[in-house]
Amino acid sequence: MLPDWLAHRAVTTPDRDALVVGRRSWSFAALDAAATRAARLLARSGVGAGDRVATLLPNGDRPVVLAHAVLRLGATLVPLNTRLSDVELAWQIGDAGPRLLVVEARTAALAYRARRERPDLAVANLDDASVDADDKAAVALHLEHDPAAILAVLYTSGTSGTPKGAMLTVGNFWWSAVGSALNLGRHADDRWLACLPLFHVGGLSIVFRTAIYGIAAVVQDGFDADAVNRAIDDERVTIVSVVAVMLQRMLDARASRPYPPSLRCVLLGGGPAPRPLLERCASLGIPVVQTYGLTETASQVATLAPEDVLRKLGSAGRPLYPNEIRIDSGDHDAAPGEAGEILVRGPVVMAGYVGRPNDAMTNGWLRTGDIGHLDAEGYLYVLDRRDDLIITGGENVYPAEVEAALLAHPAVDEVGVVGVTDAVWGQRVVAIVRLAATPDADVVDMLRAHCRTRLAGYKVPSEIRIVDEPLPRTASGKLKRAALSSREASRT
Amino acid sequence: MLPDWLAHRAVTTPDRDALVVGRRSWSFAALDAAATRAARLLARSGVGAGDRVATLLPNGDRPVVLAHAVLRLGATLVPLNTRLSDVELAWQIGDAGPRLLVVEARTAALAYRARRERPDLAVANLDDASVDADDKAAVALHLEHDPAAILAVLYTSGTSGTPKGAMLTVGNFWWSAVGSALNLGRHADDRWLACLPLFHVGGLSIVFRTAIYGIAAVVQDGFDADAVNRAIDDERVTIVSVVAVMLQRMLDARASRPYPPSLRCVLLGGGPAPRPLLERCASLGIPVVQTYGLTETASQVATLAPEDVLRKLGSAGRPLYPNEIRIDSGDHDAAPGEAGEILVRGPVVMAGYVGRPNDAMTNGWLRTGDIGHLDAEGYLYVLDRRDDLIITGGENVYPAEVEAALLAHPAVDEVGVVGVTDAVWGQRVVAIVRLAATPDADVVDMLRAHCRTRLAGYKVPSEIRIVDEPLPRTASGKLKRAALSSREASRT
Repeated sequence: MLPDWLAHRAVTTPDRDALVVGRRSWSFAALDAAATRAARLLARSGVGAGDRVATLLPNGDRPVVLAHAVLRLGATLVPLNTRLSDVELAWQIGDAGPRLLVVEARTAALAYRARRERPDLAVANLDDASVDADDKAAVALHLEHDPAAILAVLYTSGTSGTPKGAMLTVGNFWWSAVGSALNLGRHADDRWLACLPLFHVGGLSIVFRTAIYGIAAVVQDGFDADAVNRAIDDERVTIVSVVAVMLQRMLDARASRPYPPSLRCVLLGGGPAPRPLLERCASLGIPVVQTYGLTETASQVATLAPEDVLRKLGSAGRPLYPNEIRIDSGDHDAAPGEAGEILVRGPVVMAGYVGRPNDAMTNGWLRTGDIGHLDAEGYLYVLDRRDDLIITGGENVYPAEVEAALLAHPAVDEVGVVGVTDAVWGQRVVAIVRLAATPDADVVDMLRAHCRTRLAGYKVPSEIRIVDEPLPRTASGKLKRAALSSREASRT
Repeated sequence: MLPDWLAHRAVTTPDRDALVVGRRSWSFAALDAAATRAARLLARSGVGAGDRVATLLPNGDRPVVLAHAVLRLGATLVPLNTRLSDVELAWQIGDAGPRLLVVEARTAALAYRARRERPDLAVANLDDASVDADDKAAVALHLEHDPAAILAVLYTSGTSGTPKGAMLTVGNFWWSAVGSALNLGRHADDRWLACLPLFHVGGLSIVFRTAIYGIAAVVQDGFDADAVNRAIDDERVTIVSVVAVMLQRMLDARASRPYPPSLRCVLLGGGPAPRPLLERCASLGIPVVQTYGLTETASQVATLAPEDVLRKLGSAGRPLYPNEIRIDSGDHDAAPGEAGEILVRGPVVMAGYVGRPNDAMTNGWLRTGDIGHLDAEGYLYVLDRRDDLIITGGENVYPAEVEAALLAHPAVDEVGVVGVTDAVWGQRVVAIVRLAATPDADVVDMLRAHCRTRLAGYKVPSEIRIVDEPLPRTASGKLKRAALSSREASRT
């Protein structure tokens, strides 16, 4: 059993900063008290051990407090992406079956629309005055946690196009924090900036990790390069988790002026980073540390050791202790340098997906679907995320999901969705469409509007190309996405 | 399963310093190679998984290499105190039943004499040229470890006067390292000085902890205040584990000249520290952190957080995550401020004692026998080690053991052994003896010589007081040690 992290910190380091949002800050004692109040509120809404609590919350103190509150009720957090379409939201809520959906004023409309599909869903709006009333009712708090208990369900789209809820345990987050501390270190004066959404694993893991470490999480709502730079320059942020497009903008926004030495780690995730960016950071002395992480592994699974940054530029480093990585080349373990599917084993690997057989696991190894190789020294190089995955601005988009949305439109006969390299976003989503009939003039606008009702904004194709010729397919009729992808890349 | 710490570091941080002894240093790659060579050597001597390997080694690189070698054979290390008497050594070897005893030139004579009692004992002398030959024979190395496997047996004397072998698991050392990192932090440039003997838990835990952290262990053979000060001033030592008498001498040796800021933690264990020493350190800005540790908990179990040093002067702090401490006042849990026996629960608590029923445990709680209280904020104050325990210069002496040695002499009728406060050593061992007949003039010298053949030097009474009156006893004839102790203290 693991004692509650936040409760432990509230007695051992009560006065240290636990959370900073804008000009407000919470000590561990204050955050602990807020989590207990929130737990009482949730309990009054009927949430108990084993229940799921969905949230639709922008970054701020609320998702942090809620995460700890849910943990100490022995319940499970389901943080939903606030950028999802109504259809997507309704689907995920239906799949997760939460006891309660927690929203605030800014997301209440989303919940209202999602509720049309699930009229029985209980919703608590934190900006509703009646909800905020302090309740003195006694609630049994869980201040010790089974490492095997499911702490969070995070939805990730799959190759099938249907999202899957990855069930992450208390132990997954614990081991993730310990493995990171043994690699990046843990300094008493660390402050970890979360400008990634807290409904993604990269953000949520910061919430739990900082409580385990007894350091401050500095939370910003949405990515703003100037705000991140200011936090580093003026607010003693020592570690920041970003994806490549963010780092690029941070550098652009300060005309490459160096960062203060207090910034000791820029943890760079979200897919392979462009080499020119890494070289630019190296020349500026910015301590960029590449990492390879997955929702299914509670964030980082391999991270470069700080001293290897220059020697192993482009590598995501070695697996974090005590996790293991191997490369599967189909019928054998890959030799050094040989590419294959990245497999992961260890205590950060999720318990499974909600309501599905755990077919992502083979003999304890998680099949990531991502492609990479290990060099002779065992350093991981991620060559490509799952061959069909598009990463745009750090968000994952699975082509199958976008294709399914477009195929649902009667004007569409055939569609293929691919990622096209983009200087700013890494990749952007491009749909190649063959129409069922002669096109109307406004067919592209019509299809895009159609997508917007069904897909999160970042999944809506930035470009829809209408073609006459049939899409490349295998003999059995399966889309040859790689062929389509290279054909379209050459047209860019 | 936990991957081998050293092997993990040999691939992730191969070039970092792992071990420094005098002017020699070993990188993690070099230490790993040395551990494999040593494992091969041990295997050739018949050591396999589950076997015990006793060592009689002064501090240096050898006990460090051996510790890792034993781990990767799946065997158990039994590091014997090089200061034990022949009788004590023979007893512990008989109790542990090692497959092999490893010695070097300086301890070979000890082994030779111990062997008189156990002629079948296999001994390997590392300074014997034939032993050192490089052996290329293939040996199955264990590079993954079961957290429940017994990694070390460390002998600790008990209230009964008979030593007990505390069985510490792989997991005990792992959790100890993690709990310490979450409290004291882990910096990539840390260097942890071990001037405590590596056959004690305070030293041995540094060996494993530094490998887990990927930082350097700086090992000195024997305590020399000037050498410790030099290591801090010139060799970038950042953390040093000491007992009060050592710290006192370190300060005396430098006339209170301040330490460089690179020294970030003086971890002070080995019993309650004198308040004037703590105040002197506070006034000099020395980052002293008090800790309470036991052989049975793989070292630290409670440690003060650095920021509480001044506010909680004299406290050993809070239990290290995720361990718990409570105070048992006989029939109830003590209220804040109320003294009682210190009980410990958590993953650092040993698996049990060799060959004994695990009666130190009650419902998962280790009964330490030590007396303390928790304040209202849950900070531990250790008032007294087990009421009969004498701590002299950081070494534990159990009166019953010394009394048994003296009672074996025909001239002795009655004896009581107590600790008397000593400005340098914390306490010193004083024996109060009532003789069976009129004393010879040299009776004290005779008794001391008698003790020396049976007891480690630090256990031999520094003073033997001959008394005429009977010793204070209960109605049932049991020695009233507390009454004797206060009577003798007043005579000092």
